[in-house]
Amino acid sequence: MALLKRRKHDRTEQDSEYFQCYSDITVHEEMLSDTVRTNAYKTAIFRSQGALLGKKVLDVGAGTGILSMFCAQAGASKVYAVEASTVSELACNIIKHNGMEGNIEVISSPVENAEIPGEVDAIVSEWMGYGLMYESMLSSVLYARDKWLKPGGLIFPNHADLFIAPISDTVVEERLNFWSGVQDMYGVDMSCVETVARKCIMSKDIAVCPIYPENVLSHPVKFSTLNLATITLEDINDIRGSFKFCCFGSSLMHGFSVWFSVNFPGDDGVTLSTSPYGQDTQWKQTVLYLEEEVHVEQDTEICGDIRMSPSENNPRHLCVSITYSIDGGAQTTRNFQMGH
Amino acid sequence: MALLKRRKHDRTEQDSEYFQCYSDITVHEEMLSDTVRTNAYKTAIFRSQGALLGKKVLDVGAGTGILSMFCAQAGASKVYAVEASTVSELACNIIKHNGMEGNIEVISSPVENAEIPGEVDAIVSEWMGYGLMYESMLSSVLYARDKWLKPGGLIFPNHADLFIAPISDTVVEERLNFWSGVQDMYGVDMSCVETVARKCIMSKDIAVCPIYPENVLSHPVKFSTLNLATITLEDINDIRGSFKFCCFGSSLMHGFSVWFSVNFPGDDGVTLSTSPYGQDTQWKQTVLYLEEEVHVEQDTEICGDIRMSPSENNPRHLCVSITYSIDGGAQTTRNFQMGH
Repeated sequence: MALLKRRKHDRTEQDSEYFQCYSDITVHEEMLSDTVRTNAYKTAIFRSQGALLGKKVLDVGAGTGILSMFCAQAGASKVYAVEASTVSELACNIIKHNGMEGNIEVISSPVENAEIPGEVDAIVSEWMGYGLMYESMLSSVLYARDKWLKPGGLIFPNHADLFIAPISDTVVEERLNFWSGVQDMYGVDMSCVETVARKCIMSKDIAVCPIYPENVLSHPVKFSTLNLATITLEDINDIRGSFKFCCFGSSLMHGFSVWFSVNFPGDDGVTLSTSPYGQDTQWKQTVLYLEEEVHVEQDTEICGDIRMSPSENNPRHLCVSITYSIDGGAQTTRNFQMGH
Repeated sequence: MALLKRRKHDRTEQDSEYFQCYSDITVHEEMLSDTVRTNAYKTAIFRSQGALLGKKVLDVGAGTGILSMFCAQAGASKVYAVEASTVSELACNIIKHNGMEGNIEVISSPVENAEIPGEVDAIVSEWMGYGLMYESMLSSVLYARDKWLKPGGLIFPNHADLFIAPISDTVVEERLNFWSGVQDMYGVDMSCVETVARKCIMSKDIAVCPIYPENVLSHPVKFSTLNLATITLEDINDIRGSFKFCCFGSSLMHGFSVWFSVNFPGDDGVTLSTSPYGQDTQWKQTVLYLEEEVHVEQDTEICGDIRMSPSENNPRHLCVSITYSIDGGAQTTRNFQMGH
């Protein structure tokens, strides 16, 4: 029943694996099935028809080419669809199938090695990973921006906001209670497993799971904003913010949830939100568990700082460090990661 | 969004990984949550109280120790609970917590290295993997049988039956249709992806997914029976059978499903079935996809042979080869595997 675990690899292998698995059709099916995501891009691009008409666009990590085709449909005269994985072959076929090969040029390469003649008027990219920064494709977008984007050119999306809130997790609660329920199921007492189960379930791995509005224990705090026109590689390798929550009422708190939204250029700007208060997306929400659940009451105050950075072992992996105190108590620091 | 792929390791690493991941509490939670599985063992063991009273029992791959505790509750005077993973520490705690440390001895070791004094009267083991043979812990059970089981001793379970049937897969059907639906969703034609998607989805990887009675296209065929009292290592490394189906009616056929049942000793013997006609279990059903779906009609005849064997690269992995012909047409052979 077991899944064998993944191992560390050297950098070259990591990169080649990263690009290979994007060729798996299931990933693209899931991304396209996420209508919140794809329609946000489509709406934002179509609302910018005026700005894109006759212009050159660079699509970073084009995948099946859907965003490039939206740009071509919106009037772009030339789109460079850069895709490092073998899905670029599929993108070529799809683009031909739609008669857009005159406007869209597929470039099979990491964007860092791509040859693009001259400047572009806009960059479009769906680079966001779990917790925004997992897989951190944003560095490729910044590379492309600095190398090819005209001064004042458009970036889709052009802003990202990061949010955090304290949460309860009823699934974890049920899973922890499971062990004391074994007595009633089978007549054997396994309640002593709960402590071990808590260590495994409320681990330092960043979890990805859906959080529902009723599990959010206070107003969320926006702890960082990324302006894609100006942000640097150093900035995104060290994202810091702080928070202060005032809890709604009596509840068990299991951890913090982190999510993001991105905004697109334009006066009537489009927002793609992965908030628990919005529609479900493929990103769900990320969860950072406390070592042990704590009881909070109305007006319990939770203060702290959060830092997000790439893993030292693998720049596509994510480290998150949280330092917090509850009602002015002792500070606790917990370091999380996604990917091993 | 991508999951990095697993790599091949040498044999020692494979084994150590295999045992490590069983320590993950989630696996044990899932196994215990499967009441069909656990209650089958409990009922079979309790019905054999007469045969187990005052006897010695060996539990191969004891996990949390649940089966050992059932045996102790049923009157066994001594149970050797052999467990290779670190979950054995947890088993020790649970057994003490239930005051059974006098009757159950936990042995932290692969059964092949275990030191057990003298013979045992019974062996109990939950060794079954996906498609029965994935992870093939059965070889460890046979090793224990040959080394320690008294002549005529009991084995829980003592029989296993393997079944096969042609099936339709509505999830695969929907996933293939997804690509022609992209036009309506986003105004871009991706119907040309269906062929690639079929290759990825209907791959030679043995799939594990729930199959429902309405998706079974003919009466199933029992293609092999394993008598655990007599079967040898050579036998289980080369399981062969044949089948002949007569289809119920008009349908798309996507592949073959393989499942198993096991029987326990006793006159009013208990059966644990993973059939699509029974209650859901953690094993679900395994599916072997055709290269491409075919249309079958009432009385369409499908004949063929099936062979199951361990992978040459990793004995815990599973290879399945199927040769079949439809309505006396050309023979097709397709080789599947689980684990890479």
